[in-house]
Amino acid sequence: MAVSLTGLPELHPVAGITLGTTCAGIRYPDRPDLVIMALTEGSTCAAVFTRNAFCAAPVLLAREHVGRVMPRYLLINTGYANAGTGDRGLQDARACCQALAQLAGCRPEEVLPFSTGVIGEPLPVTAVQAGLADAMANLSTTGWAEAAHGILTTDTVAKGASRQVIIDGHPITVTGIAKGAGMIRPDMATMLAFVATDACVSRDVLQRCLEQGVRGSFNRITVDGDTSTNDACVLVATGTRLLPCIDAVESEEYQRLTETVAEVCGTLAEDIVRDGEGATKLITIKVEQGANEAECLSVAYAIAHSPLVKTAVFAGDPNWGRILAAVGRAGLDDLDIQQVSIFLNDRCLVRNGARAPDYTEERGQQVMQGEEITIQVTLARGAEAAQVQTCDLSYDYVRINAEYRT
Amino acid sequence: MAVSLTGLPELHPVAGITLGTTCAGIRYPDRPDLVIMALTEGSTCAAVFTRNAFCAAPVLLAREHVGRVMPRYLLINTGYANAGTGDRGLQDARACCQALAQLAGCRPEEVLPFSTGVIGEPLPVTAVQAGLADAMANLSTTGWAEAAHGILTTDTVAKGASRQVIIDGHPITVTGIAKGAGMIRPDMATMLAFVATDACVSRDVLQRCLEQGVRGSFNRITVDGDTSTNDACVLVATGTRLLPCIDAVESEEYQRLTETVAEVCGTLAEDIVRDGEGATKLITIKVEQGANEAECLSVAYAIAHSPLVKTAVFAGDPNWGRILAAVGRAGLDDLDIQQVSIFLNDRCLVRNGARAPDYTEERGQQVMQGEEITIQVTLARGAEAAQVQTCDLSYDYVRINAEYRT
Repeated sequence: MAVSLTGLPELHPVAGITLGTTCAGIRYPDRPDLVIMALTEGSTCAAVFTRNAFCAAPVLLAREHVGRVMPRYLLINTGYANAGTGDRGLQDARACCQALAQLAGCRPEEVLPFSTGVIGEPLPVTAVQAGLADAMANLSTTGWAEAAHGILTTDTVAKGASRQVIIDGHPITVTGIAKGAGMIRPDMATMLAFVATDACVSRDVLQRCLEQGVRGSFNRITVDGDTSTNDACVLVATGTRLLPCIDAVESEEYQRLTETVAEVCGTLAEDIVRDGEGATKLITIKVEQGANEAECLSVAYAIAHSPLVKTAVFAGDPNWGRILAAVGRAGLDDLDIQQVSIFLNDRCLVRNGARAPDYTEERGQQVMQGEEITIQVTLARGAEAAQVQTCDLSYDYVRINAEYRT
Repeated sequence: MAVSLTGLPELHPVAGITLGTTCAGIRYPDRPDLVIMALTEGSTCAAVFTRNAFCAAPVLLAREHVGRVMPRYLLINTGYANAGTGDRGLQDARACCQALAQLAGCRPEEVLPFSTGVIGEPLPVTAVQAGLADAMANLSTTGWAEAAHGILTTDTVAKGASRQVIIDGHPITVTGIAKGAGMIRPDMATMLAFVATDACVSRDVLQRCLEQGVRGSFNRITVDGDTSTNDACVLVATGTRLLPCIDAVESEEYQRLTETVAEVCGTLAEDIVRDGEGATKLITIKVEQGANEAECLSVAYAIAHSPLVKTAVFAGDPNWGRILAAVGRAGLDDLDIQQVSIFLNDRCLVRNGARAPDYTEERGQQVMQGEEITIQVTLARGAEAAQVQTCDLSYDYVRINAEYRT
């Protein structure tokens, strides 16, 4: 189903990072479902988490741990999200961290736990614990691709991105993996994404770098508007390169690294939309000439979440009336619909609030045949702009979410 | 598809109101698509319209007319919404009003136009005009049921409600019809609803009565969150009963009439949800113990618009994790999810943010077998409450909206 996703690109190892994956039988047999990511000593780590008030236990615990010490291990399981599990969920997450700490010879708070899968069922702690030894034994610098598969749930393809750039004369690598297909409207980070670099970056600067990276990527995508309980995005800097430590956001090195991180995050985020549940089309929504970014985003999300727009795109129907209706209900003060224009790719459908004089259904339908469609809206209210990516709403979205958990 | 809708109940005539319906061939042949509602001289009329900034031409014109004079005729067509049609759309709407005015011997501004159907295509004015004579010839006090059919688009059943009450010793009738199944999240009124009473009510008081009536009915339903461009709800009072004119909102008569209007609106609104596009379940969402009504509504709409909740209900899956996740992302300040409880009908699924100790999947699934499900959320933050009604998201929703217009 995924829109033009042909599988993982080459994922360059990041010196100082090893990954181990195993089939622990957490929910299904013979399926990779447990991943350990080991961080070399001296690494810095930044993280952002879901803003959903209903947080999963591992999110609560990871947030607590990362605020206290630098982590040495990330422990990720799929199958069960360990969300809505109350006090027991927290105990279960702690038990998993403890088991890994014992095996690895570190403190439990040096382990960050991540879970994804069904909400509300208890985590099968014994299965997780039993899988740890095998995952540890598999730790390898070349384990990225296997790990990308090991964190999937309803995803149909694994998602990874990797860049190598020269910063201040030093070759620097940024590699990341992500998962997510449904319950996707990240409000800080996406379901799960893990990105690492071998640059050396101070903790605060790394956090800033991550926040800038997710702002235009994971925080600008939506599949169904349903912000997850388990969203998390982690950025690790192992500092294994000779490049001096980046400890100021004003530096050129910071700019260059942040651009690269943003690029990797952007690719991963777009991949999540391409693999959105039931997706047959990738829709990029650009709202321009707004008075401020917030109103551009309101309009973009009103379109991105409209079931009527999404089903029309699924049907290949250039139904601009539904797009204009979504613009009209986005809640903008004193919006003059007579000033609004709408383009599909480079074709003008609507000019000044009504069908463009030279627009024909045939021209619109031609654009809609493509797998990737850009809806561009100009508001004529200012100079600000925003972009959001989403996918269409198909029979398969309903099937996947009606069948999941049954 | 409609959830437990068995057809129209008896619709009591309202003295002073006649209705005429015809097949004008506006979009399809041999289908009732043109309705005239004639109001006896001296009637008062109140109306509320969509708050979508993208308003249809007939909405703009009807709003203008009703603000100037008391209307004598309502003219309703289906097939084309006459929205997104620019200046030509306004001219077309005016031409239809003029044609009816000429035929009926009244002024054009005494006609209120209403359109529903496809957005963005021009209104076939000639077809509308050609149908007027036949619709006028059919005018009858018993024309309500035919008119209820004449205003439908993707609806699968006609919707009407009628009440007879005694107010201050006088028998008073309130009868109404409505249409709507998709692009339904009324933000002032629903797609189209026409309600009439034979009570005598002053204009300002009637407007207040209508606003109170729609507040808890049409303004508390959603099918897909897409507020229409053509929403309108009209309340007419013909004053043909001996009951003295109701001209103060403090009176007992006003209270009694408003309750009855609200009841009729409530039935029509619920019918719209029952006939929501692709609906197989009616979902009533009650949010209680909120700090204020606004936050209760935020939570209720977050649940009502969640594609994950809606597909789970379609599948008969008591997936409370998705409900709790929707509560968590509703944007409430400092929401403590540990205080939240969730009930399906009378079964407690979630207590204090986690699965209720005595809850079993079997008990939840039993409830989900029913066609009518109440999701009740308690926030433990105050004493306010709000209720919203919606329906599930099925394959047929996608089919209807992918096929419509193709």
